Amino acid sequence: MRIVVDAMGGDHAPANVVAGVVDAVREFGVEIVLVGDTPRVQAELSRYSYPQDRISIVHASEVVDMDDNPIDVIRRKKDSSMAVGINLLKKPGYDAFVSAGNTGALVAAATFYLRMIEGVDRPGIGLVIPQIDGCAFLIDVGANSEPKPEHLYQYGRMARVYMQHVMGVASPTVGLINIGEEEGKGSEFEKETYRLLQEKMPSFVGNVEPNKLFKNKADCLVSTGFVGNVIIKFAEGLMEAEGAVLKREIRKSPLAMLGVLLMKGALNNLRKQVDYSEYGGAPLLGVNGIVMKGHGRSSAKAIKNAIRATIREVEHGIIDQLKAAVTAG
Amino acid sequence: MRIVVDAMGGDHAPANVVAGVVDAVREFGVEIVLVGDTPRVQAELSRYSYPQDRISIVHASEVVDMDDNPIDVIRRKKDSSMAVGINLLKKPGYDAFVSAGNTGALVAAATFYLRMIEGVDRPGIGLVIPQIDGCAFLIDVGANSEPKPEHLYQYGRMARVYMQHVMGVASPTVGLINIGEEEGKGSEFEKETYRLLQEKMPSFVGNVEPNKLFKNKADCLVSTGFVGNVIIKFAEGLMEAEGAVLKREIRKSPLAMLGVLLMKGALNNLRKQVDYSEYGGAPLLGVNGIVMKGHGRSSAKAIKNAIRATIREVEHGIIDQLKAAVTAG
Repeated sequence: MRIVVDAMGGDHAPANVVAGVVDAVREFGVEIVLVGDTPRVQAELSRYSYPQDRISIVHASEVVDMDDNPIDVIRRKKDSSMAVGINLLKKPGYDAFVSAGNTGALVAAATFYLRMIEGVDRPGIGLVIPQIDGCAFLIDVGANSEPKPEHLYQYGRMARVYMQHVMGVASPTVGLINIGEEEGKGSEFEKETYRLLQEKMPSFVGNVEPNKLFKNKADCLVSTGFVGNVIIKFAEGLMEAEGAVLKREIRKSPLAMLGVLLMKGALNNLRKQVDYSEYGGAPLLGVNGIVMKGHGRSSAKAIKNAIRATIREVEHGIIDQLKAAVTAG
Repeated sequence: MRIVVDAMGGDHAPANVVAGVVDAVREFGVEIVLVGDTPRVQAELSRYSYPQDRISIVHASEVVDMDDNPIDVIRRKKDSSMAVGINLLKKPGYDAFVSAGNTGALVAAATFYLRMIEGVDRPGIGLVIPQIDGCAFLIDVGANSEPKPEHLYQYGRMARVYMQHVMGVASPTVGLINIGEEEGKGSEFEKETYRLLQEKMPSFVGNVEPNKLFKNKADCLVSTGFVGNVIIKFAEGLMEAEGAVLKREIRKSPLAMLGVLLMKGALNNLRKQVDYSEYGGAPLLGVNGIVMKGHGRSSAKAIKNAIRATIREVEHGIIDQLKAAVTAG
């Protein structure tokens, strides 16, 4: 298996990307192709010892910046690590692409260069989120901020394939994120989407309210990219704020400080279970190739975890499964 | 000051409402009119001692249920505690109405019976949310799930009045909740709203991403009712899930259990600062009268806090301030 990684994508690239890649190679025995500025990538690589035949570099002279217009990756930065990396997937022997770079650019480049699989009109970014027991798949979290109901239906179908084949859930259920449980809640978009899912989606369980998002209401949760993105960003902000406030409170009391030490294990486990960056990557589904989005602030560990999640997709032949399931309908 | 309270609104009414009202009367010295089924309210009241001249009952034979269609409160349940209570505001000597009942019905009844103040087309529900330092005002959290950009502009203007006159912020800034910081982010609705606010709103600071919602980016945060409702419901769900996971983790370790005991004070302070139900109520702004929405699961304490927040609005003459500021533009 050979995975292409955008060495220049994300806030701390290439240092953290290379560190994560080295760990992934050691731990998963996978082969990695790093795409980026060769001297800089080489310099980072030289800091580690690793099986040399497992990591190679493909040069790319440009970098897509976080504030670049998504369309630039196609029009202007054709020799960017992102464009070059995605284009490698069109050749035999390259199984997947991982990037922690500009989300909009990644969606645009993947759509433009790889094209969509038949039966899917727009790509969606999914995310495995924790549940009180197990996990669920939320899609879309930011590829398509103003979708049509039909797109959410397609997301639901792809999410079912992901949960079934990658996560091993036998017959995944699908829920629609909405501000009320009953049919007829939400804006016109949600009402229409509800009717469509009711009619055409197997295992549709109805609306799921955001306060019940962790309560195992459905294996797959569909939403607009706007709402999905609000949810994951807000979760990040809320957890950060809680951490800041707790730190401030604890500083006021020596007993609380001791308490925190004693609770450290439990708090770390909480973070692991609630913080979905632990899963590492967010699969971009719908394009004709395996593309994984890493968080922009990805640490080396997050990069490694994103590679692990990507390996799972390759092993389970997700693209063939998607084509079989989605194109068939 | 005389505040009308819906004795029958919310999950544990009238018991928790009456308990909260008794506490409010004792603590704030306010006069309360409880609207509801007289025998049931009387039975609850008889459990407490309180200054008798401070609490009176106005009978209403019907109750708006949580799953009633909002329009029923106007068409069918004209003698409900909600309809009767709101109508009292049209008489002299009644200053405000508080209800923890059906949100949609409250919005419909307040709009229908009280009418809008000039210059506002649709009511919005606001919420005081904590910031790392101080607080901000988020509007709309569920009255208007599919607003026009113009409505968000009006919400922003009302939010500024609230923050200035009720919360004492000298020159409140306004931000638009959006999935990116730069102009041009989000769906068509956010782009249009951005342009409108840019052009007409004093102290507009641009987009605020949900991961920065607690970071004092703006004093007033405007969003569609759909997005605002997703945010507050998701916050509730996330905090609940964290609590459940933490409890499970702690049970695994006696040291962690001890840690929790030592941290109890800090954890409680965290909850107080992060949990916005602590503020108690969510003002319905735009209607021609002071209306406060309590959380459906309101405890006695939440009811008391909602009454306190209502008192502040009355004291600061919020309706006159809104009329002066909004109608003037």
